[in-house]
Amino acid sequence: MTPAASRLARISAPPIARAARWVASYDGRHGPLVDCSQAVPSDPPPPAFAERLALAAAEPAAARYGPVLGDPVLRATYAGHVSARYGARVPAAHVAITAGCNQAFFAAILALAGPSEAVVLPTPWYFNHLMSLEMLGVEARALPTRAEDGFLPTREGLAGVLDERVRALVLVTPNNPTGAVYPPALIEDLFELCVARGIVLVLDETYRDFLEGEAAPHRLFAHPAAETHLVSLYSFSKAYAIPGHRVGALIGGPAFVAQAEKAIDCVQICAPRPPQVALPWAIEHLADHRREAAGRIRRRAELFVRTLAAVPGWRLEQIGAYFAYVAHPCRGVASETVAETLARELGLLVLPGSFFGPGQEGHLRIAFANVADAAIVELGRRLSLGFSLSPVSREGEAA
Amino acid sequence: MTPAASRLARISAPPIARAARWVASYDGRHGPLVDCSQAVPSDPPPPAFAERLALAAAEPAAARYGPVLGDPVLRATYAGHVSARYGARVPAAHVAITAGCNQAFFAAILALAGPSEAVVLPTPWYFNHLMSLEMLGVEARALPTRAEDGFLPTREGLAGVLDERVRALVLVTPNNPTGAVYPPALIEDLFELCVARGIVLVLDETYRDFLEGEAAPHRLFAHPAAETHLVSLYSFSKAYAIPGHRVGALIGGPAFVAQAEKAIDCVQICAPRPPQVALPWAIEHLADHRREAAGRIRRRAELFVRTLAAVPGWRLEQIGAYFAYVAHPCRGVASETVAETLARELGLLVLPGSFFGPGQEGHLRIAFANVADAAIVELGRRLSLGFSLSPVSREGEAA
Repeated sequence: MTPAASRLARISAPPIARAARWVASYDGRHGPLVDCSQAVPSDPPPPAFAERLALAAAEPAAARYGPVLGDPVLRATYAGHVSARYGARVPAAHVAITAGCNQAFFAAILALAGPSEAVVLPTPWYFNHLMSLEMLGVEARALPTRAEDGFLPTREGLAGVLDERVRALVLVTPNNPTGAVYPPALIEDLFELCVARGIVLVLDETYRDFLEGEAAPHRLFAHPAAETHLVSLYSFSKAYAIPGHRVGALIGGPAFVAQAEKAIDCVQICAPRPPQVALPWAIEHLADHRREAAGRIRRRAELFVRTLAAVPGWRLEQIGAYFAYVAHPCRGVASETVAETLARELGLLVLPGSFFGPGQEGHLRIAFANVADAAIVELGRRLSLGFSLSPVSREGEAA
Repeated sequence: MTPAASRLARISAPPIARAARWVASYDGRHGPLVDCSQAVPSDPPPPAFAERLALAAAEPAAARYGPVLGDPVLRATYAGHVSARYGARVPAAHVAITAGCNQAFFAAILALAGPSEAVVLPTPWYFNHLMSLEMLGVEARALPTRAEDGFLPTREGLAGVLDERVRALVLVTPNNPTGAVYPPALIEDLFELCVARGIVLVLDETYRDFLEGEAAPHRLFAHPAAETHLVSLYSFSKAYAIPGHRVGALIGGPAFVAQAEKAIDCVQICAPRPPQVALPWAIEHLADHRREAAGRIRRRAELFVRTLAAVPGWRLEQIGAYFAYVAHPCRGVASETVAETLARELGLLVLPGSFFGPGQEGHLRIAFANVADAAIVELGRRLSLGFSLSPVSREGEAA
């Protein structure tokens, strides 16, 4: 067993912070930085919600500790919301409120797997999932996906990486980093295999509110095996534009929730109370806001597709609710070098594929949803200028 | 290696929640419940601070993610405050802001120790420390302390439990559960042994603001080995009456902070932003509030001492900034049975010694600081009534 100190030392620093440092060497020649690095809402929370957040923050009752699993009203309201959205009956007792979705994942892993066990992550994966597994000594078992499959894992692929050490499969849909939205039938098919093999499906739907339409993203909450084999992760940060307030949620069966409660108690005691007090109103009254945001992001995605198509050498591989995953034109160059050069020379901050696991050197993740439409156009303009590493792009221009 | 699922299943549920359930069977015959179970401020935050918390909660900038290690202004303000309080120079870069002190401890342990390694906890210990170690697979190495020593560990005792698997010693001062305030010379002596043995001292000073006087609680922040062998834990919950807002802090050397950053990123991304925005003002302007609270709690401790002295059969073992640790009169009865009976029959909620580690069955922890003076008097009155398990007390009455 590796000592924890050296185990943690081997884990890379949080990559978002690393990427932010590249920006320091951009001299501003092309105008202000276009930051497509992080999945954060660019707009503030709606004024009526901000007002309620302020009232809750001044409330003496909200300054006190609350239940480890979250405020009962928020648990019940969120359970009702999920029940309606998915056409299922999720009891409030199956909900645990966490301080964001990273914490929900961390608590879930503590409850589900330990050192010498493994958890399957399709690649490209979300870097904090890898980091959390590594620091808990849990093996991250890669399940490669391919651009030609839309970065969707397959049932055969999953079957091929399972063994008796695997305790869970993690799926992120809409996906981070690729943006891929997993079809309900695929999610259900993979879940059936999890059930058959006695493992848990951890389903991270942080970005689900940016899906348009009323159709349920999947039918698993109504599945008879949900109580024992499904754990759902969610973040209130994105749809309600409050990442700084730190609130997320877990849904699982009673046996799972009882174990997760211990983990949450130790890492948090309870999620911050003021936003827990304000959120039930938001869940019930901001449906229009959620729909508008989803529509705005879909239109921005369309703009992004048109914009990138006009830049020689760049290829869009996948795009979804929040992210575009693109193939850069610099064959054989490490993606981190490409991303750093884009930041330094063009003032464009995007994340390299290498942040998202093995086999991703040809890709960049562009979080288009959090920048203004004008910045998308500007990103296209700057990419068209070319940069010191862009042979294909320059060939394109020369041709 | 035990699978995580069964490892977590073997850990007890958060004990505070378990204790709260006993109250349901109290019929109210002696008046309202007197709750001395949890270490929470009974007063709301001062109005001028509550106003700033509200302003920050409505601020668009505070709704966004912040740096993993915390807002720079808060890190600098807290570093300045600690520097002044301890007569040392703590750089802002040595500070990490966490979502409370449990999280600070959890992140510290992730950075310092792993499975097959051990961390020394003097007994009685703080239950969340034990739970965190257990769920991370780290051995909690008990260092017994004795009532006749004021529950202070000794250098010889520490030397006797160290071996090559031990990575850290945890000290809590003022202590939870005993209230013991460790003398500076003892803290420094134990630190010297840690340095000599190449391990880290994790010093939890959650309750330090309730110490009166201007003397530094210890001189370790100015010690040349502090950067490499000292980790300090703190909570803003107690002094500023905002446990529901979830903010704490870590101080450590740059190498430690770089590792802790990865842990905080995974369990939290960043601590809640609105209270981070409001806290610098509080640190600088609420010194009088902190002093008043410390004085009020000292007077309440004096009242508690007088009150308990008048109850036959009960013995005060130790008392400090927040807690009293008492020997109950029911020899041979499990402390949890005593605590449950006190809740059910007398409407007095206190925590059993068994929550705090091995060898504690004769004790109860009474968090006197968070109840009104009248409730202390009422606690004395009800204890004097006797209860179904109190033989010594009844003998005392009969004599």
